[in-house]
Amino acid sequence: MKRIAILGSTGSIGQSALAVVDAHADRLSVVGLAAGENAEGLAAQMARYRPKTVAMASGAALDRLRQHGAAGATLAGSGREGLVAVATAPDVDVVLCASSGTEALEAVLAAIEHRKTIALANKEVLVMAGGLVTEAARRHGVTILPVDSEHNAIHQCLHGRDVSEIRRLILTASGGPFRGRSASELVDVSAEEALQHPTWRMGRKITIDSATLMNKGLEVIEAHWLFGVRADQIDVVIHPQSVVHSMVELRDGSLIAQLGVADMRLPIQYAFSYPERWAAPLPPFDLARTGRLDFDVPDTGAFPCLRLAYRALDAARSLPVVLNAANEVAVARFLEGRIGFPSIAQIIERTMDAHVPAEVASLAAVRAVDQWAREYAQEIARGVELKV
Amino acid sequence: MKRIAILGSTGSIGQSALAVVDAHADRLSVVGLAAGENAEGLAAQMARYRPKTVAMASGAALDRLRQHGAAGATLAGSGREGLVAVATAPDVDVVLCASSGTEALEAVLAAIEHRKTIALANKEVLVMAGGLVTEAARRHGVTILPVDSEHNAIHQCLHGRDVSEIRRLILTASGGPFRGRSASELVDVSAEEALQHPTWRMGRKITIDSATLMNKGLEVIEAHWLFGVRADQIDVVIHPQSVVHSMVELRDGSLIAQLGVADMRLPIQYAFSYPERWAAPLPPFDLARTGRLDFDVPDTGAFPCLRLAYRALDAARSLPVVLNAANEVAVARFLEGRIGFPSIAQIIERTMDAHVPAEVASLAAVRAVDQWAREYAQEIARGVELKV
Repeated sequence: MKRIAILGSTGSIGQSALAVVDAHADRLSVVGLAAGENAEGLAAQMARYRPKTVAMASGAALDRLRQHGAAGATLAGSGREGLVAVATAPDVDVVLCASSGTEALEAVLAAIEHRKTIALANKEVLVMAGGLVTEAARRHGVTILPVDSEHNAIHQCLHGRDVSEIRRLILTASGGPFRGRSASELVDVSAEEALQHPTWRMGRKITIDSATLMNKGLEVIEAHWLFGVRADQIDVVIHPQSVVHSMVELRDGSLIAQLGVADMRLPIQYAFSYPERWAAPLPPFDLARTGRLDFDVPDTGAFPCLRLAYRALDAARSLPVVLNAANEVAVARFLEGRIGFPSIAQIIERTMDAHVPAEVASLAAVRAVDQWAREYAQEIARGVELKV
Repeated sequence: MKRIAILGSTGSIGQSALAVVDAHADRLSVVGLAAGENAEGLAAQMARYRPKTVAMASGAALDRLRQHGAAGATLAGSGREGLVAVATAPDVDVVLCASSGTEALEAVLAAIEHRKTIALANKEVLVMAGGLVTEAARRHGVTILPVDSEHNAIHQCLHGRDVSEIRRLILTASGGPFRGRSASELVDVSAEEALQHPTWRMGRKITIDSATLMNKGLEVIEAHWLFGVRADQIDVVIHPQSVVHSMVELRDGSLIAQLGVADMRLPIQYAFSYPERWAAPLPPFDLARTGRLDFDVPDTGAFPCLRLAYRALDAARSLPVVLNAANEVAVARFLEGRIGFPSIAQIIERTMDAHVPAEVASLAAVRAVDQWAREYAQEIARGVELKV
């Protein structure tokens, strides 16, 4: 029986993870849950899964949780401390980090120090602190299993192959809802249009990141840290059907690809079952019925965020932190309807231009750069707000 | 330094194998060569690679070889004995079985008994004697590395995964030059048309087998023996671009695929380098440039040979031997222009219908069934000859 703690249990990935637990109740048990502000959702999960430790993002949310009745579980606290408590509880074997944003950074590092296996569905952890996290994992002999479908695919393709066998990683990208449009055709697109992702159902922030291709840019940075390859060994190919989840080019030119349905339960289950592989309660994938797969190069003219991510990874040090923070600010403004779609990349680029890359050898240093970048990006965002 | 013996060195696969040796002269040396009737070709190879042991199909061919001057090498003999001598010479590490037909059966079994690694590019060995060969390999702890691009792809996809993880093997088939045609549109096709394979350059017999889909049928039988899966776990999907070389569906529904250029040097090099993987002197494969991959179900109405192969595998025992022998007879007649394309499947089916499956526990038993089937198929072929 593997004992699971889920950070971000009421979100999209968290719910899929609980569906995986439902399907394998004889092999998985939920011992810890952490949610953001959705007290009602967490209370319902507690009634069903009986975790020993729970946490929420704020004291107010915890108060609401108490009103729903939270008997039987330890309310470990709120904010980052709550996440740390859930992730490091002694009975936890695997921590699924499925909360978005940067709040889980401390919890992931603490879980690594407590030698928990990490199932990582959060991008910011590696984009902001990839060096710190992977170094800690190496030091403590901890496995980080990627849950993102692309990195999970690469993990499956590598299947223990040494990094020296890798010539190139090829991340596939659906291209999002605006694939094929030129830069001028993207000036007036709305948040509502951007939220119509063609193949994956995901949260709002990540869906906008898919529309700008920043999602793929963040994945390029993640792939660098997860698999130990250089930026110039990571390529992106547009693949609108999202059937091939990613590929590895080996040193003889052979490509190994992982394909399947676009359902997050599969990579989550892979991470929970690893190194075993369990049957999944999903219909088999029928490639002949899909019929056709397309591949194309990404258009970094119309979608400059991907280019910005490569620039950040090339410079490394603190620049990926700036990229991520400025992107979060810009996407939030776009979702509020306050800036146009092209302004997202402009805000990020101007914030990166203003930053002098420095070493980030501690979480405090990461947080300081993050804070600076958010404030700078907000300032620029104000200057490009749409007139209403 | 790995020391290689090549059975069938002047054929298409043999020549590609020598190109691999050329590219890795620091890691591979040629110690044995066996050819069919092409004495001039073998003499040229001997001058270049200086093998210690050579053989040819017939005494007459050996005589011609002597006329070309064969100094420095032992002429091991002709026919099956010659192949055995080349394959079992003490300095051989890896035997590449690239001769077509059934002549190499004894040599492969003898090489296994001498604990040589087998790189297998010949289909008949496993179709006719899969049980004998795989049992001998198990007993002697010998690795059989498939060189056929489809099985080589599956070997790469599995990469040590246990057979219990496999739900299904999916062999890709280009569909050959007649893909999409109905049975009635195949009545009058000529051998010349059938020899125009769209993606692979191969020998004449195997190119006709691609046009009838018998090639894929033989591969289904091979896959059964190589990977230890049942007939109902092996599917065929039509994939005209021949970019995806084959796939494995794992028990959770995830598919692992191997992709790349259609160049036999890659699977040959993989087999020679295994368990290492060496860089290959080929340009990288550009999936975005390929652009589009198509997949479809095979039409076993128009191409009944695939169905016949499944029938032979289901019945197992001696029926695959009959299938293969009748196919060889029928394809030879078709290449001679003596029978029509649809007669190939008819001759095979009628020969199978006339056969009472029996155990084939020895090579002698295999050869006896083979002989019976050839004679029976020839008899039927005479009855369906075209009027000229």
